[in-house]
Amino acid sequence: MPAVERTLYHFPLDPASRQARLALGEKRLPFEPVVVRYWEQPAEFGQLNPSGLTPVLLEIEAGRRTVVCEVRPILEYLEEAHPQPELLGADLAQRAETRRLMQWFDRKFDAEVGSYLLHEKLEKRLTKMGAPDLGAMRLGREALRTHLGYVETLLGERDWLAGRRLTLADFAAAAHISVLDYFGDIPWREIPAAKTWYMKLKSRPCFRPLLADRWPGLAPAAHYDDLDF
Amino acid sequence: MPAVERTLYHFPLDPASRQARLALGEKRLPFEPVVVRYWEQPAEFGQLNPSGLTPVLLEIEAGRRTVVCEVRPILEYLEEAHPQPELLGADLAQRAETRRLMQWFDRKFDAEVGSYLLHEKLEKRLTKMGAPDLGAMRLGREALRTHLGYVETLLGERDWLAGRRLTLADFAAAAHISVLDYFGDIPWREIPAAKTWYMKLKSRPCFRPLLADRWPGLAPAAHYDDLDF
Repeated sequence: MPAVERTLYHFPLDPASRQARLALGEKRLPFEPVVVRYWEQPAEFGQLNPSGLTPVLLEIEAGRRTVVCEVRPILEYLEEAHPQPELLGADLAQRAETRRLMQWFDRKFDAEVGSYLLHEKLEKRLTKMGAPDLGAMRLGREALRTHLGYVETLLGERDWLAGRRLTLADFAAAAHISVLDYFGDIPWREIPAAKTWYMKLKSRPCFRPLLADRWPGLAPAAHYDDLDF
Repeated sequence: MPAVERTLYHFPLDPASRQARLALGEKRLPFEPVVVRYWEQPAEFGQLNPSGLTPVLLEIEAGRRTVVCEVRPILEYLEEAHPQPELLGADLAQRAETRRLMQWFDRKFDAEVGSYLLHEKLEKRLTKMGAPDLGAMRLGREALRTHLGYVETLLGERDWLAGRRLTLADFAAAAHISVLDYFGDIPWREIPAAKTWYMKLKSRPCFRPLLADRWPGLAPAAHYDDLDF
């Protein structure tokens, strides 16, 4: 097997980057992580991905470079290039359900929760935009409760979010939820099925690097890396 | 070959729905289109797709129902279930480039252009939210120029948006651009390469149903369905 030099450009508290890290970890594909301060729009990163967004996967094999930009393309790429273990599901209907939930978190959850809570708590801090807006945070927290209720309902009926097996839907949800958990925003006591599910995820080897993430000046909630929280 | 009963729930002026219609048309997969007034949140549609968003594909074959919710899952499903003609590209690097551009339009273009222009011109009209905000429209138009400049640059180097062959990247771009063209917002004279590309797309059979779209009370620009505009 030829040696592949694999690099992931990411930001530790970016839910999209976290999904790529989880998938790479679950498939046991070693990679060098490079942290991108995307809000500073570094020029060399813009040459890799014109949109300026993380994550980006770079693979160099026998001098041939493959650049895969952004989370959905990376996840589909990894499924096609490294099909085992299968993270989308075996049949067409299962894959549709996995992708539906991935879209749910990347589009709906991100727009209704992340764009409020992470913008106020994280992005404003990184870009020195001033104090969080409490009204926006309240809107985000209310939407978060609704979304967590949906997760709780699904996990009352299923072992994993998209069905009987772990899929990228779990990684999508866990990536978004884990960043909010860093800030102590997840009311775990109200969602026991989701808590059990998250404990199972936290104890997987692919999750460990995420639990070790720290960003200067932003301490995580006390239970953030606790496997038995 | 068993008969498949195929239905697409869509909204004619929704860029996401248009991508699904183009892919189905290009693959010559017949379907019954059902228009969803998604902003009225019809209960039976919410049962198909809990997010309430269009498009949704329903296939019934020998009594077995397959529901595929939202545009990215539908497009990936169609590629897997009906691989010919191939619309993502043959090799991994090409597929990564196609998906990068799909993501570009569905995430970046939609956030920077559509969320302003379509929100002001279309959604406010549908939901009777009042007159368009001129400041928001100006922001959307400025971002639109930047995005069209990027399309023009790519098409100066390539036959199609993602390379040498037609892909879903072209459909993603054309779906977003065609809705704005319905409202007369595309400055075609400034982007000759993009205009030639759009003429080629417009003359494909898969595009005809989109050119026939009309929404009550919203007349399209005079050149909207003109193949030689």
